[in-house]
Amino acid sequence: MSSYTRPYSSQQSYTPSAPSLPEYVNQQDHAYNSFSHPPDDNMRRQQHQPPPAYAAGYGQGEHSHGYSGFPPGTHPDVIRSFQMVDRDRSGYIDENELQQALSSGYQRFNIRTIRLLMSLFKNPHDPLRIGPKEFVALWSCLGQWRTIFERYDKDRSGKIDLFELRDALYGIGYAIPPSVLKVLISKYDDGSGRKIELNFDSFVECGMIIKGLTEKFKQKDSRYSGTATFNYDEFMCMVIPFLVSYD
Amino acid sequence: MSSYTRPYSSQQSYTPSAPSLPEYVNQQDHAYNSFSHPPDDNMRRQQHQPPPAYAAGYGQGEHSHGYSGFPPGTHPDVIRSFQMVDRDRSGYIDENELQQALSSGYQRFNIRTIRLLMSLFKNPHDPLRIGPKEFVALWSCLGQWRTIFERYDKDRSGKIDLFELRDALYGIGYAIPPSVLKVLISKYDDGSGRKIELNFDSFVECGMIIKGLTEKFKQKDSRYSGTATFNYDEFMCMVIPFLVSYD
Repeated sequence: MSSYTRPYSSQQSYTPSAPSLPEYVNQQDHAYNSFSHPPDDNMRRQQHQPPPAYAAGYGQGEHSHGYSGFPPGTHPDVIRSFQMVDRDRSGYIDENELQQALSSGYQRFNIRTIRLLMSLFKNPHDPLRIGPKEFVALWSCLGQWRTIFERYDKDRSGKIDLFELRDALYGIGYAIPPSVLKVLISKYDDGSGRKIELNFDSFVECGMIIKGLTEKFKQKDSRYSGTATFNYDEFMCMVIPFLVSYD
Repeated sequence: MSSYTRPYSSQQSYTPSAPSLPEYVNQQDHAYNSFSHPPDDNMRRQQHQPPPAYAAGYGQGEHSHGYSGFPPGTHPDVIRSFQMVDRDRSGYIDENELQQALSSGYQRFNIRTIRLLMSLFKNPHDPLRIGPKEFVALWSCLGQWRTIFERYDKDRSGKIDLFELRDALYGIGYAIPPSVLKVLISKYDDGSGRKIELNFDSFVECGMIIKGLTEKFKQKDSRYSGTATFNYDEFMCMVIPFLVSYD
């Protein structure tokens, strides 16, 4: 048993899910997408959990007609958030518009997290814009991360510290070694000397990076030995998508 | 022989160097520093190459006194660039000040490249600021990248395209597979439909990422087989420093 995945015996059915990607993302043969792994058994089981509280009203669909492209039953708030920023009614929004749209339901996300979300949920035909379908999937994924954030922000500070991050990741099935968490969280040190804490957008970024890289590693560690072998090409093509992006 | 390192027999003594790090960076036992490998034989040989043209005047040192911390012989332009932004004369500059300082000798660097440079050349006692010694080493490293950039910007467009990038990396000893280069350069797609080309700062960013990750891979591939085995902790701790940074 490797150190980074918890023993399955300790995973209970009410474990909150690591937000999973829409089916069509997994179906793509998408060399650049670092999250393109099929959901594992744990993920599949978790897809049946009830929607988060903010999603009450989803599935009724009384306002989803009149704007094409949204799945039936899309919550009117989600449609409104999209419409508000899609001013030319093209049916697609870019990263800046996504940043504005999410501000209506969440806080203002930093552009780096926005780009990571865009690269995850992108329309395969247009890598720089997303449509209604992608937007709904992205919004739903963020709702799941929000549920996890609120559950592990024990002191209700609106921020997650190192220990809460460790517990949150453990809660969704990733037992991340302290050395890895320290490297990760050190990147958010603002030099003030204060304890490092993550806002929701940085928490989402950390969660998606840990989940994405760990799942990639697991693909090469089928026996869960904690060790994986890569050839140079696959190593580089796996890591680079997480690194840089256009300005 | 792996695919990513050229056969040594083809490396000639006038091969331009991959800019190398100052000795003290290599001496640090610095788990977070993705470039902390010892220079290989090729790098060591290349350290004896003549300084780039912009460095004429270095070594005379007639202006380097009067501002403590600069190595003897530091070019006065470099000292001036540092002094110009270190307004409180603390002897240390942060990322925004570094961005300003480099603008005097180069173009305006994007903040992402600045952060990569800061993480590479950081003062071990203060991860968010650098002093004169680090600044001089960083400036010199950029001079070497500038020489490479100008050599491989064959059409003098001031930009490097995919093929020029491939040739430039090959010229400094890295035979990078097309699949890897395509993933890397796709991150700079601005959606305009135009051919992707890199400014100098993005070229430096690409070069440092390729060099940093390849050298890390080589440490685990001592027989140059093209395959390397990592345990989970070292894999994550190696990759994460390239990924995210505070806002």
